[in-house]
Amino acid sequence: MPLEALRWDVTPIGLHYLLTHYDIPDVDAADWRLAVEGLVERPLTLSLDDLRARPVVEVPVTMECAGNGRAHVEPHVVSQPWLLEAVGTARWRGVAVSSLLEEAGVKEGALEVLFTGLDRGVEGEEEQAYERSLQVAGLVEGDALLAYEVNGVPLPPQHGYPLRLVVPGWYGMTSVKWLSRIAVLDEPFGGYQMRHSYRVRHEEDEPGEPITAIAPRSLMIPPGIPEFLSRARVVEAGRGEIVGRAWSGAAEIVGVDVSTDGGRTWAAAELGDAVLGRWAWRSWRFAWDAEPGEHELCCRARDAAGNEQPLEPPWNLGGYVNNAVQRVAVTVVG
Amino acid sequence: MPLEALRWDVTPIGLHYLLTHYDIPDVDAADWRLAVEGLVERPLTLSLDDLRARPVVEVPVTMECAGNGRAHVEPHVVSQPWLLEAVGTARWRGVAVSSLLEEAGVKEGALEVLFTGLDRGVEGEEEQAYERSLQVAGLVEGDALLAYEVNGVPLPPQHGYPLRLVVPGWYGMTSVKWLSRIAVLDEPFGGYQMRHSYRVRHEEDEPGEPITAIAPRSLMIPPGIPEFLSRARVVEAGRGEIVGRAWSGAAEIVGVDVSTDGGRTWAAAELGDAVLGRWAWRSWRFAWDAEPGEHELCCRARDAAGNEQPLEPPWNLGGYVNNAVQRVAVTVVG
Repeated sequence: MPLEALRWDVTPIGLHYLLTHYDIPDVDAADWRLAVEGLVERPLTLSLDDLRARPVVEVPVTMECAGNGRAHVEPHVVSQPWLLEAVGTARWRGVAVSSLLEEAGVKEGALEVLFTGLDRGVEGEEEQAYERSLQVAGLVEGDALLAYEVNGVPLPPQHGYPLRLVVPGWYGMTSVKWLSRIAVLDEPFGGYQMRHSYRVRHEEDEPGEPITAIAPRSLMIPPGIPEFLSRARVVEAGRGEIVGRAWSGAAEIVGVDVSTDGGRTWAAAELGDAVLGRWAWRSWRFAWDAEPGEHELCCRARDAAGNEQPLEPPWNLGGYVNNAVQRVAVTVVG
Repeated sequence: MPLEALRWDVTPIGLHYLLTHYDIPDVDAADWRLAVEGLVERPLTLSLDDLRARPVVEVPVTMECAGNGRAHVEPHVVSQPWLLEAVGTARWRGVAVSSLLEEAGVKEGALEVLFTGLDRGVEGEEEQAYERSLQVAGLVEGDALLAYEVNGVPLPPQHGYPLRLVVPGWYGMTSVKWLSRIAVLDEPFGGYQMRHSYRVRHEEDEPGEPITAIAPRSLMIPPGIPEFLSRARVVEAGRGEIVGRAWSGAAEIVGVDVSTDGGRTWAAAELGDAVLGRWAWRSWRFAWDAEPGEHELCCRARDAAGNEQPLEPPWNLGGYVNNAVQRVAVTVVG
């Protein structure tokens, strides 16, 4: 997502970030079915029409890749070299996971639910479908949904057509696309994407901590105009505004601070209302009288759980969850 | 565009390639107007409703970036490092440029038409709006259009909302987005994007040749499944098909050849019909009995003007127009 797209409450289709682990699968919705099985009283096999016939939920969600910010991590980590653009907000519409689990009847002893996609590839020398699990308890109480529409249209292929999981507040790796199967399990799922990927580790041989809720982040729309190759910014002198968005999966955003001197001094930005609800970003704005010269603009969010963006990128093997403050160098011309 | 998206005749929105020179401008269509001026009898100022009230044309167009293939050029050229994915096909709908020029009445002595976008940036140390010109003669006779819809929906912001130029058969740099002004000129336009960018040059101080029509290219859908990091392909042994698309702006595609041994031997693929007309890609297919081992798959298109894809990437300063054959290494497992 180019950062000027922060101007929209809901990110237009084609500007929302994408991470496609393997290839986008070729799915004929007429033949496609979702299997709901495992430790359930009533296994289900559902067509897209079956799902559309069920009660509808719509949730605006800010989704972010766990690798967002990776390109700023030192030493460099080889994977998708996201700068800060791996984020977007969409209105997802579909069926609540909690209601589908209730319909199937989760049996006693159930611990996790495994979500399996149709996308296949090789990773860590294992051929696999992309699949990840979540704890039953969180799904029964939470706002996760199986989405067949985004921003009022059927899911485009790249967003998981015909059906995907969307887990509000969690990094995007959890929201399995191109769903084919939901299986209730009585033990923790130990597949590659749980056991190896998406864990914060500092040594190859440690198990590490699983990645879960989105850490707080704020981003500004880089002001002014860009230089083509370097993307350096040029801003006209005078009174203006710095505007952006802030979000956190762990707890509500309670404040955004802005610095125009590279982080030496900070002042509070004005937070907009949570117009899209708990799971989507909030806007913020900050008045700035731009004086000619070189400036480094920064923004820093904090949430109600006391989490705050760090000034320097944290390092880990996967280059995950780098929510260090954004820094935008600008040249103000008078 | 991920190459598996070659499976669609018309590329879904969000999978078509994008190149945004500067930032995506923030446009309120209610205030927006298109100026048609310069060497015309009747200057026009048109709203989006004015344009929608005019006769409608729809043209399916395969658009490709002049920098497509740049990442394969040696020595490396610093700019957008496209592998082969900077292409897409869309149904563009709007007003024919020829009819608008006729309505405005092009005066005698007119030589070029300048198309100016609302996107601003700094390039070659010049602050500029993105703008490029075309010869009047080609526009009067050609199929260029001013598009306000793509694939049946209003232009998304990233594709030039509310109005863009689309020039079938030319590389994408010609199809100016976020149009604000069309000016008829009596001399060649010498702006940065004509004089410096988008020219094939081998020395910094030579004027070089302007980039115009799209050179022939064919691309296959990489068969099998990918390895996550390397994107190397793994294919199951047995009878199957290699499928892809081919296009050329200069003349119709007349043949596609496929090699499964890295270009030592070639055989003809079966060309599909030109179902989307002259300006869009054609499908092709090739039967392949995949035997276990390592293979390098290649495809090579030629057009009716005798242009054929080269086996090795041509080099030039900008890394433009590299239409060397695609090479896909696959491991066939038995």
